[in-house]
Amino acid sequence: MNAMLINSRNQLPRAIVAAIAKVVGHRPVALHEPRFQGNERTYLRECLDSTFVSSVGPFVDRFEADLAAYTGARHAVAVVNGTAALHVALMLAGVQPGDEVLVPALSFVATANAVCYCGAQPHFVDSELPTLGLAPTPLREYLGEIAEQRAGQCINRRTGKVIRALVPMHTFGHPVDIDGLMALARDFNLALVEDAAESLGSFYKGRHTGGFGLLGTLSFNGNKTITTGGGGAILINDPQLAQYAKHLTTTAKLAHRWFFEHDEVGYNYRLPNLNAALGCAQLEQLPVLLAEKRRLYERYREAFAGVPGVYLFGEPDGCSSNYWLQTLLLDPVLEDARDSVLTATNEAGQMTRPAWNLLPSLLPFRHCQRAPLPVAESLERRVINIPSSSFLV
Amino acid sequence: MNAMLINSRNQLPRAIVAAIAKVVGHRPVALHEPRFQGNERTYLRECLDSTFVSSVGPFVDRFEADLAAYTGARHAVAVVNGTAALHVALMLAGVQPGDEVLVPALSFVATANAVCYCGAQPHFVDSELPTLGLAPTPLREYLGEIAEQRAGQCINRRTGKVIRALVPMHTFGHPVDIDGLMALARDFNLALVEDAAESLGSFYKGRHTGGFGLLGTLSFNGNKTITTGGGGAILINDPQLAQYAKHLTTTAKLAHRWFFEHDEVGYNYRLPNLNAALGCAQLEQLPVLLAEKRRLYERYREAFAGVPGVYLFGEPDGCSSNYWLQTLLLDPVLEDARDSVLTATNEAGQMTRPAWNLLPSLLPFRHCQRAPLPVAESLERRVINIPSSSFLV
Repeated sequence: MNAMLINSRNQLPRAIVAAIAKVVGHRPVALHEPRFQGNERTYLRECLDSTFVSSVGPFVDRFEADLAAYTGARHAVAVVNGTAALHVALMLAGVQPGDEVLVPALSFVATANAVCYCGAQPHFVDSELPTLGLAPTPLREYLGEIAEQRAGQCINRRTGKVIRALVPMHTFGHPVDIDGLMALARDFNLALVEDAAESLGSFYKGRHTGGFGLLGTLSFNGNKTITTGGGGAILINDPQLAQYAKHLTTTAKLAHRWFFEHDEVGYNYRLPNLNAALGCAQLEQLPVLLAEKRRLYERYREAFAGVPGVYLFGEPDGCSSNYWLQTLLLDPVLEDARDSVLTATNEAGQMTRPAWNLLPSLLPFRHCQRAPLPVAESLERRVINIPSSSFLV
Repeated sequence: MNAMLINSRNQLPRAIVAAIAKVVGHRPVALHEPRFQGNERTYLRECLDSTFVSSVGPFVDRFEADLAAYTGARHAVAVVNGTAALHVALMLAGVQPGDEVLVPALSFVATANAVCYCGAQPHFVDSELPTLGLAPTPLREYLGEIAEQRAGQCINRRTGKVIRALVPMHTFGHPVDIDGLMALARDFNLALVEDAAESLGSFYKGRHTGGFGLLGTLSFNGNKTITTGGGGAILINDPQLAQYAKHLTTTAKLAHRWFFEHDEVGYNYRLPNLNAALGCAQLEQLPVLLAEKRRLYERYREAFAGVPGVYLFGEPDGCSSNYWLQTLLLDPVLEDARDSVLTATNEAGQMTRPAWNLLPSLLPFRHCQRAPLPVAESLERRVINIPSSSFLV
């Protein structure tokens, strides 16, 4: 089989271009584009008519209520983007300067940047194949080796620093092994902050991602399943923490008719009402978008059934994924064909891309702690995301 | 005269309510509301039609070019809000953890917060009456006492820390004494970062505010002269610094067809195209808005001519102000009537407010260094901002 696959390497780029074209046709297609076919124009007009376009307005409040209702979180706090959501969530989880925070090596740079904004350092850990996200079993073994519990804190014996939190990310929309990670967080005294930037509409055992940890974060960037232009949200079940999130993201100003009393260094992170108006309309469309994205996955599955050595990634057991980015995994013996595939597809007008460069390989994070990363390193060489817009089928 | 004024104290609230009503009529009026009477609806619709609502799009590029053309700065970099603009401007000015930054005690909290985001500390200095902004003469004297120059750096002898930058703010839209502050910055080796959040449309000796220092920052919050919902910009004359500002505000990603290489801890601060679309339309309206706001000032001047002890603040000599917030200054002997004026006006439906609480009085900044602040302390007790929307006359 491997020999056959190796021989098919030269045909691989053409075979993948053909399989994608079978689904999306022969036109230029982006990786992920939004679609505005609901009340987007109406709500934006209403927003202008009201003159409330900024940090106060009915659409922000409604968007937060709608997000809470949809995800089942008790509270949602809308902010300017997913990075800001992560920054504040980590602060609320108690991350302090000098701490370490466990972060997947395979993630977008925002996950690690937000840790740095707190004055802490990312500590990179490995992924697993069933989910593409954080792997609880090797992480448990790793922490058993390098960490010890002292006075209810997890201490990295190598650095002497507190490992404060664990930030799993639901890769390309596919839920991580939440049960495994929650047990691990409990056993090692780690705050669990779910980076659900990519997984709005993804459910783990029937419950929405982002609502399991102490805090979860969403993103509504233009490339996400729904968009507010730029935007994000923090999902929170604890009412006091939710109130504090709102306070911190609105310059920490105390309520008063006219005085400007701020009781700590706060942030100007509130989502504008204009962007929330777009978000309310987009959220109404989410069920339709999810159904279309699932149909796109089914169509790709048929098209790729005949391409040896290429696995179209499907949702993990017990999960319902939003299929944010459709994902091909090349067989390891074909991984050195990845760049030819990227070139061929992009030259054919099919926008594709590899996984993110592993975070510990980036200049700002090369000095950071890391666990062995065999799976993430393999995934980095084998992942290809292919056109994923909801309206392609 | 003073005795007469003291006797008029009880009549003051009623007299001020009447003077405002003479200009705006007997209806509820907000402090500052935007107006959308140009291409706002058209551009937002175009933005949705294009599907480019997020961090890439033609309106962001155009908004930056339009801002540069209007202000005369060589480059403008659009960001999510004025606070983000200040944060990045201070980083670009070389502000480092442990530094001190000279900031007006009389300003909105964002000026000081942005300093803290850099790991530095605000060092509060006084204002002056002709401009309501930073006072160069007493500041020169103060620095002469407390600071010394070592190897091209300004060192605070009391704390041993580097005083890295000076951040004048153009209060309520009125330009500071830029010549005086630029000379001072040069003599004391301070980077000059202009907080022009409030002064889009304000000119000092014929040149737009925000373009004199190494960097300047603008805000387009909902309460500003023009709005993008939430938004801001950095004005920069140095092309390399402008390129770096763009890099830092877009996650420090290196250009590549598909690889995710980021060369430092960057920020997700890019203004979405949706908000920039609103900004382009608003900027077209700016000349009209400025003319209306100036007319409102003239009308208030007539109305307040007959109210003893109340001075309507006018633009400093040699300056053209945008009159962002119309400002009353009470005579010092009447300052204890300020709260009755605030109560009476707000109860009459005229939204008014005092100056910001002085920043060094706020909990997060009480431990910070400060110069003597006699003028700022007096202004804090005597300033009242009155309804200022462009469409009131």
